[in-house]
Amino acid sequence: MESVVENTEELQFQPPAYSHVLDLNGFLSPHQNDSALLILNQKIMVTGVFEKLWRNYFLHVCADGGANRLYEYFDNDEDRSRHIPDYIVGDLDSVREDVLRFYIQKGVAIIRQTSQYATDFTKSLQLISLHFFSSSFHKVTRSSGIDTNYGIEDCHGIHTLYHSERKIWVDRDVDLLVLNAIDGRFDQTIHSITQLYATARTDAYYRLCYLTTTDLIMLVPTGGALIKYSKKFKEECIKNCGLLPVGKPSVIRATRGLKWDVENWPTSIISGKVSSSNRFVGDTCCFFDVEDPMVLNIELNLEKLSMFM
Amino acid sequence: MESVVENTEELQFQPPAYSHVLDLNGFLSPHQNDSALLILNQKIMVTGVFEKLWRNYFLHVCADGGANRLYEYFDNDEDRSRHIPDYIVGDLDSVREDVLRFYIQKGVAIIRQTSQYATDFTKSLQLISLHFFSSSFHKVTRSSGIDTNYGIEDCHGIHTLYHSERKIWVDRDVDLLVLNAIDGRFDQTIHSITQLYATARTDAYYRLCYLTTTDLIMLVPTGGALIKYSKKFKEECIKNCGLLPVGKPSVIRATRGLKWDVENWPTSIISGKVSSSNRFVGDTCCFFDVEDPMVLNIELNLEKLSMFM
Repeated sequence: MESVVENTEELQFQPPAYSHVLDLNGFLSPHQNDSALLILNQKIMVTGVFEKLWRNYFLHVCADGGANRLYEYFDNDEDRSRHIPDYIVGDLDSVREDVLRFYIQKGVAIIRQTSQYATDFTKSLQLISLHFFSSSFHKVTRSSGIDTNYGIEDCHGIHTLYHSERKIWVDRDVDLLVLNAIDGRFDQTIHSITQLYATARTDAYYRLCYLTTTDLIMLVPTGGALIKYSKKFKEECIKNCGLLPVGKPSVIRATRGLKWDVENWPTSIISGKVSSSNRFVGDTCCFFDVEDPMVLNIELNLEKLSMFM
Repeated sequence: MESVVENTEELQFQPPAYSHVLDLNGFLSPHQNDSALLILNQKIMVTGVFEKLWRNYFLHVCADGGANRLYEYFDNDEDRSRHIPDYIVGDLDSVREDVLRFYIQKGVAIIRQTSQYATDFTKSLQLISLHFFSSSFHKVTRSSGIDTNYGIEDCHGIHTLYHSERKIWVDRDVDLLVLNAIDGRFDQTIHSITQLYATARTDAYYRLCYLTTTDLIMLVPTGGALIKYSKKFKEECIKNCGLLPVGKPSVIRATRGLKWDVENWPTSIISGKVSSSNRFVGDTCCFFDVEDPMVLNIELNLEKLSMFM
């Protein structure tokens, strides 16, 4: 039966064993080489944490005009030179000529993909997968240069390579943080949400997360997840949260560790019954059990975030 | 059968008769007294058009901390005094003391509603409805003052009054533009989307639209709508658009006037099949026929917008 319980502000409990764990501190400081920071084409607004994020993530990719935003984030070439991405990818209709020249000169692999049947975001995700898992991708790119598009067919070479290699590679978890996925054009925001669902389905090795100036945004998969964080991080940085049935009406089977915990709670954007403006009271974790994948946003105190990275 | 057609850049056609018309120029310049501008609690970013919007709309309402944002938009009391809202409404936990004092002194009706079962956004919508349609609301508020919360019970008085009056009033179309509904905390963005659906269901007299720094966002109801605009406005101001099945998978029965027109096109955020990065090529209108209500975003060139207001 549907129920809602209001909890005290500090809740300690024994979490169940969950196969899917979302470690909030880990999203900011992955501390492993299988990690990538992807920059999309909007102004970088997470000042104060951007440079730490850059250091904490191993691979750095700019989607097309995202390269402009990286370039413009710094006001001098010395700082720029210390933040050189590994790849710039996309149809390259947005990146500025002078920005491209700067990064070419610094040895960035610039891979043009003109196909209009995928977005720069999708192209970037497939490129990152190839980087981590495909040996033939590295064989091709290493033996070629900028003049031959690094040996990648320039319309949908990445797409083709990804699909031919996808079934044979052995994958590992990859931490993937994306900047500028949300808060731009609204159809692009929604496209980013579709990527959460698509990636969970086809490339579940990604621990995919979006950072905005207000939130961390991720997907809670069917069956639910355990959300972990340090006590101090919760106290200092975590504010409101929402568990959002974007895509289709569904049921939150149970939550534990929220201010307002629910059970067997039907939720739908169309009916207007959505768990928003809730918050974490679980000491070091909380968990959600959901019937279908749902979008979780967690409001962060951006000013204090860098203390935890 | 599902189909997609790519159109030329300039398309002239005879639109069908549609009961539901969304007039884009009208959203910016309603030119009627039944119109309201609602300011939610985020920084006002639509500089360059804000003052024109203020003049074009008849009623002005701030939801709680939205009053701070109005106050902070101006750097002197002279400008502030020329932009005095009619109401400030909400639980008043966000609005600053000094801001409240300023607007009290200017005679603004400040109506406290402490209920936690509705958001400040919902409270504002009900207040605006009461303002336009309920004579007993005006009788009560006129005979009372700030010291008695304008005669409105201070927990859920507006809610109660709205529901008791709703069935007896005779409604008229009201143009309602909301600022700061999108691009804040993601659960608040989604809450704003639920309001599009809820309002279409319960208060269809609202022509409700959100303006962000990038988009106009509105709901296309079941059965579809005709989107009207001037030729010049399209050429100078309208850029990309998306027709987004937020809430549940659905079918776009037909579009006419888009660069990529579709027919019988299943669409779903979960499957990733979403019409985004499309654009208007219809000369002065385009139309959409949809099986369920869908969210439409239209990218605007904010710099040129004020020329069309």
